[in-house]
Order: sequence, then structure tokens, then C-alpha cells
Amino acid sequence: MSVSERPGTAPAPGDTDQDAWATLASDAAALPLEQRPRLPLGFAAGAVAAGIKPSGRPDLAIVTVTTPDPASAAATFTRNLVQAAPVRLSRAHLESTGGGPSAAGLPPHGRARAVLVTAGCANAATGPAGDADQAEIAALLAGAIGCRVEETLMASTGLIGTRLPVERVASGIEALVPAGLGAGDAALEAVGTAMMTTDHALKSASVTVELSAGAARRQARVTGVVKGVGMIHPGMATMIALVLTDARVAPDTLASMLRPAVALGFDQLTVDGDTSTNDTVFALASGASGTDEVASGTDEARALAVAIAAVCRSLARQQAADGEGATCLISCRVSGAERLADARAISRAVVGSSLLKAAVHGRDPNWGRVAAAAGAAHRADGSAVSLSVQSLRIALCGTPVFDGEPLAFDAAAVRAAMALPEITIDVDLGLGSATAEAWGCDLTEAYVRENSEYST
Amino acid sequence: MSVSERPGTAPAPGDTDQDAWATLASDAAALPLEQRPRLPLGFAAGAVAAGIKPSGRPDLAIVTVTTPDPASAAATFTRNLVQAAPVRLSRAHLESTGGGPSAAGLPPHGRARAVLVTAGCANAATGPAGDADQAEIAALLAGAIGCRVEETLMASTGLIGTRLPVERVASGIEALVPAGLGAGDAALEAVGTAMMTTDHALKSASVTVELSAGAARRQARVTGVVKGVGMIHPGMATMIALVLTDARVAPDTLASMLRPAVALGFDQLTVDGDTSTNDTVFALASGASGTDEVASGTDEARALAVAIAAVCRSLARQQAADGEGATCLISCRVSGAERLADARAISRAVVGSSLLKAAVHGRDPNWGRVAAAAGAAHRADGSAVSLSVQSLRIALCGTPVFDGEPLAFDAAAVRAAMALPEITIDVDLGLGSATAEAWGCDLTEAYVRENSEYST
Repeated sequence: MSVSERPGTAPAPGDTDQDAWATLASDAAALPLEQRPRLPLGFAAGAVAAGIKPSGRPDLAIVTVTTPDPASAAATFTRNLVQAAPVRLSRAHLESTGGGPSAAGLPPHGRARAVLVTAGCANAATGPAGDADQAEIAALLAGAIGCRVEETLMASTGLIGTRLPVERVASGIEALVPAGLGAGDAALEAVGTAMMTTDHALKSASVTVELSAGAARRQARVTGVVKGVGMIHPGMATMIALVLTDARVAPDTLASMLRPAVALGFDQLTVDGDTSTNDTVFALASGASGTDEVASGTDEARALAVAIAAVCRSLARQQAADGEGATCLISCRVSGAERLADARAISRAVVGSSLLKAAVHGRDPNWGRVAAAAGAAHRADGSAVSLSVQSLRIALCGTPVFDGEPLAFDAAAVRAAMALPEITIDVDLGLGSATAEAWGCDLTEAYVRENSEYST
Repeated sequence: MSVSERPGTAPAPGDTDQDAWATLASDAAALPLEQRPRLPLGFAAGAVAAGIKPSGRPDLAIVTVTTPDPASAAATFTRNLVQAAPVRLSRAHLESTGGGPSAAGLPPHGRARAVLVTAGCANAATGPAGDADQAEIAALLAGAIGCRVEETLMASTGLIGTRLPVERVASGIEALVPAGLGAGDAALEAVGTAMMTTDHALKSASVTVELSAGAARRQARVTGVVKGVGMIHPGMATMIALVLTDARVAPDTLASMLRPAVALGFDQLTVDGDTSTNDTVFALASGASGTDEVASGTDEARALAVAIAAVCRSLARQQAADGEGATCLISCRVSGAERLADARAISRAVVGSSLLKAAVHGRDPNWGRVAAAAGAAHRADGSAVSLSVQSLRIALCGTPVFDGEPLAFDAAAVRAAMALPEITIDVDLGLGSATAEAWGCDLTEAYVRENSEYST
């Protein structure tokens, strides 16, 4: 598995971001999540079984914006060079409503009225016919909602190389808009459920954040749903996330918050190292909470950024825990790195190592595999990370096992600790102050079985 | 699994190497191998069960040089930052006998009298005590052979973080030198067998090359043995190869031949993307064939380079076919690339994709996973490869399945072809003339089982 920078969906942080991102990451990790995810104000949502999934389960979800103005929208997309039709069309739509390509370092952003997600067919590598299908669906959605076609966003997940059944999607849109859309929390759950493919559990997260409404304080909510736990039978790992908030925030400010949230969350997640043609994260801000507009650089912006990062972090952890065939979540925390890029790369390399993943599956405290994975990590530019075995320290489930040389430890006790649903691996490089965290899961026979069945 | 440049053991080729390497690769692929691997002249070899492997199988092998002068020697080592004691000591020895660090772009090279390989313990991440153990073993070997300690080379494979049992190694050396060493082909087989850990089959290859001996022609032989089929239970993927020839060639010329041979062979091999702390390839040239010295830039040098590349290519393919848990060899041939680096990265990305490996295990002609793996490939410098889906063509086992858009094909016939022991995947980028080949194996439940057992 990959030991190098995963081609992320958001720009990677520079070293100048190091301190700001470290604070953001620790604040996000500390933020309490709500018990029950809530749909923020200003959105309506719903899902239907349109007949795309052979199973007949719900497979088409729509989220619309119910405020007078369209929502601020930002998105990160897969960097795979083979990009699905919905990815290319959604990017073009955001560039259109946002007034052209986004500034360097900022994810694409603009305005949106509706998001449509289909599961069961990726509409990737389908040639010009697939592009025409997606454009037709966008036009149908815009017509049903009563908005400009550029105000629609789309994401798909499923088998690569097969065409979307446009007529079924059209019937689904007709069934949902407007009668099938609701503003309750059940609607949010319906959207999350329709997006699922090989997922076993609905994955969502919600936090509440205090923002100002003129002189008064008012609550805004940030809620995310995500699908994606590996390669989706019988197609691709198509991670799709929706992050919705009723805070009022301009598109470029929202985009600036989405960037570190995705980089600290989804980009630090690996199930099997494969990068999909369809990965998409959409963030929409309706402004319906009645708060003042969150201006960049204020305490409010900082609070909202932490909330978005907390939701993305929680979703990424839920994805790892629900990884295809997985029996546990693996968290790797790297500290003492000379550079942020090193901490990020090493934490990903450890949770991405096939060997380490298989060892964890056997609840085997084989720390040598951690050392080997760390030592083989590379930064995004291909250069090796800074690592010295003399100053390297490793702990498994809290028990120190290596400190420049092997330590004697109670292997039976560590094995027992490894029976918990979350296995923590701490790697201290002893070289600096940069830290990072990444999440993965164990590699199991069940993963192989799930992914070796026929597509045809 | 990795979609990026595998941290190779030899310097990666630059674009200026493109044409020369393409010719070398195709000539090497076309060179006939001998039916039965032969030990070249000028070497004696043997192996013994020293008690390092718990199984009691042979685990200590020695190859000595029987000519009056020490052999020319070159080596490539793992680039993992956690490097085993034998790796660091062998590099230092080559620098000593070669007169200092090797020139940029050339692997370390110098002179050697003996190589000692142990299996069952990696002597990696063992701290200063592990370095002292390895130095003691080198001194014992030099004493037994009657050579300078700097003329010894060592490689180890097995569990990380445990100490080598020096006394058992000492007894093994005593048993082997000189009485247990022979010049026959059985001695070569004994060495290859003692190196094995999770390997199922002895992996070796031999070619004969015509070189000049003054006015006359004379045959020289190039023979290789290799171990390594993934992560060795219960430790690391420690690939160790010995390439022996009785041609007469200077150390730097030998090193210049080893570089492309390793890059075109072992560096294009992936079983599970994990990079070991112990990977080592040693090349030794005894000169005992009686040929003239092979001078750099001559036809003879070219013939010898092709022979070395052919042996490394064959060994790498044998390793992939014997990959842990594997049921088949996967070969990916990339053509039409704009740059050699792209062809190399894409071919590796395809055979390294967990998803594709699992699909092949199910004999599933799921070409979307090939497209997705190719589109996510990165060069060594982290930049994305050049790839356009419009000009992309994919064939599975010779059957075209994608040409800018999905092609209709007989899935049952392709599934039937995928039952063969070698699955070929052809990717034509349609952008240029660069080509490359890489090898891997399917991902199976057996791989997971082999690697999730306890080390402790």
C-alpha cells in the first residue's frame, strides 16, 4: 500500500500552515459532537429508489436550498486524472457561479441551489455519451427545482464504465421534487442511506457553533454525511460527502475553511490506497440560521472552521471504522516531526501499510512493521521524510515498544489492548514539533472477498 | 496500495535514458534463459542450518570468490530510512574497497571476497547492539575466509527488532568454511534454498553470453538467485538477490550495468507495496571465465548488461508469481507514454492497486480499476503522470476493453483467459513512445492469513 502522499482532494498544507493547522486539528478533535445529527436550517432533503442499484434500495438523493438566495458552495474533488462526468460538470458549474477558476490554494467555490447524488453507477470513463447524460440530468434537476442549471451540483458512485439510466434518474427527480423533500432529521438520514453502497452503517456528524447575530449570539449548525468505505462493489471507492451549514458565509471564506478540514480529515484516511474517479466533498452554507455573515479572519470564522474540521474528522474516522472487511479502526498519531508534511506522510504510511494492517488484524504487536512503514514514507514531492531511527519512539495502544532500540514489553497485555475497536499507534520522531493523525483499518480476508467478486 | 513511485533500490532513470533503456528492456526480455541455473566459474557456495530459523531449516548461506583477486562487486540497497545493520555495514565495506562513496547515479561498488546471507532474523532496528553483532560476524567471516573484513558483504532477512544469534552464526561459518563450500550447481541451489522464508519455490535464473578472450570468443555466465515474496512471516519483505558472473569487469562498469537491471527488474515489482529495511541486491563478477575485461561502452559491455538485466527481470517475475498468497502473476505493459517515468509509474500503479489485485483474484475483467489506478499514478517527484482518458486504450489478456470509451467485449472469454497463470494488462496512453513493464500478483485471503499471524 501507499507509503507516499495520497493524491488528496484538497491542496496539501505548506509548512507555513503548520502552527495554524496544529491548533485547528486539536480544537477540532476536542469539539463535542451532537448525539443525533440534525439537518441545518435552510435545506430540504430526500431520497428515493430510482432503480439504479440492482438491489432496489434507495439510490438517488437530493438536497435543495430553501432560502431566497442560493447557498454558498465549495467543493473538493478527486485528483485522479480519470474523472467522472459529474465531477467535471460540478466543477464547471462552481466556476460558472463563482466567476471563474478559483484562486490558487482555494477549492472551487460558487453558489448552489441543489445537490443530486446517485449510487450504483459512477458515470466514469463513459466517454462523450456519459457527459451528455450528466448534462441532461442537470437540466432536469434545474427544471424541477426552478433554478439555473449552473446552480446544480452532482456526485455519483458505483461501477465505472457503465451509463447512468437517465430515464430512471428523471423519474426519481420527478418523484422527489418537491413532494419528497423534507426539512426534518429523517430526511438527512434518508440522504445518507441512499448514498451508501458497501457501507454497513450510516455515517454522519453534527456540531453546533455559537455565532453572532448582530449584538446577540445565535447557534449555527454544521452537519455532514458521507459514504465510502473502500472500493465499492463492484466498482470504485467513491467517497462522497456533503457538509451542510446554516451559517452565513461567503463562498470564498467557506472554501478556505473546507480546505484544511478536508486535508486534516478525509485526506488522512486510507482504506486501501486506491483513489477513485468520483471522490467529491461538497460544502453548502444556507445562511438560514440568521447569524451575521461570518467574515474571514474573525473569531466567528475560526469557530466555524473548527466546526467544519470536526465534522470532517468525525466522518473520516467513521469511514475508517466501517472500512471494507474491517474489524477495527487504526489511528496513528505522529509527533515530534521536523515538518508538518513529514508528520502527515508518516501517519498515512503507517495506517496504509498492508503489512501493518494485516498484523493488526491478527492483533499482533509487531512494531517492526510500524518502523518500516515510517521509514519508507515520502512527502508529496517524492522526497524522503526526515526520520532518524536513533530518536524514533513507538507506542502500541499506549505501551512503549521502541525507543531507539527495542524495549521489553508485556506482549500479552498489548495483544489484549488490541482487542478494542480502536487501535492507537503513537510515533514520536523526536526531531521537531509537528504533529499529524491518520486513520485506517485492518486488512482482512473479508476485504479480499468483497473485492474479488465478478462485476460482469 | 501504492500508486506512486516505489522507493526503488537503484536510481530511477532520467528521460535521457529513455531510448537506451527501452532497447535494454526489450533485449533482456528476448534473451533465452538456461533450463538449469548454473553457478558461474570462480565462486564456491554452500548453506547450513545454523539454528536461526525456528523451523530448523537451512538459514545461513555463504558465497566465496575462489579467484586470486577479489571479485568486482556492486550493490543496491533499500531506501527505507530504517536500514538494517547488514545493509549499513555492507555499504560501508563497498565504499572502503571502492575508494569512497560511489559517483552520483552509480550504485555502491568495490571489491568482495565473500557474501554471507542469514534468514530468520533481519537484524534491523536493533540499535548499537545489532551493529556490534554484525561487525562481529563480518570479522568471523573474514577470519574464516582469510580476507580483509572490508571484503565481506552481508544480507539478512526475517523478523525486525530481534538480535542475531551470533554464536549460532559463528558455528555455521565454521561448519561451512571451507569444507561445506562447493562449486557445483547443487551449491547454488543450497544458497537459494537457505535464503527462502515464506517463498514457496527456489527462484533462480541463468544466461550465457559470448564475450571475447583476446582474438577468440568465450562464454561467460550470469546467474542470479533471489528470495522475497512479500512480507516475510513474521517480519518484513526482505528481498535479497545475488547476481554472480564469471565475466571480467571492473567494479564501476559492473555498477553501471546493475543500475538499469535493478530499475527495470526488481523496482518494477510489487507484491504489497511495503518497503523493507533489508532489501539488498549484490552483483559479483569473478572474471574466472577467462574473457578479456569487459570495457565500458563496448559491444561486450552491452551484451553483459543485457544478460544481467535478463536475469534480474526473470527473478522479479518469479518473485511476483510466488507472491505471498498469490494464485497468478500480473504483468502490466504500458506503451504510448509521453515519458519513461510515466510508463514506469503507471505500470507499477496498476499492478499495485489493491482493487485491481482483488479483481484479478476473482478473475473479474473489471477494467475500470485499471483506468482508475492509471489515472492516480504519480511520478517520483510527486507530479501527476500525463494521461488523457480520450486517448487511453486498455486490453485485458489481449482483448481490447476500452478505447476512449467502453468497448463491447466477450466477458466470458476474457474470464476464461484470466484463468491462466499470467494475466497481462496492456495500457496504451496514446501520447508518446515510452514503454515500461511491471509485475505483481493477485490479492488473496491467503495473503491476509499469512500476514496476520502472531510474531510474539
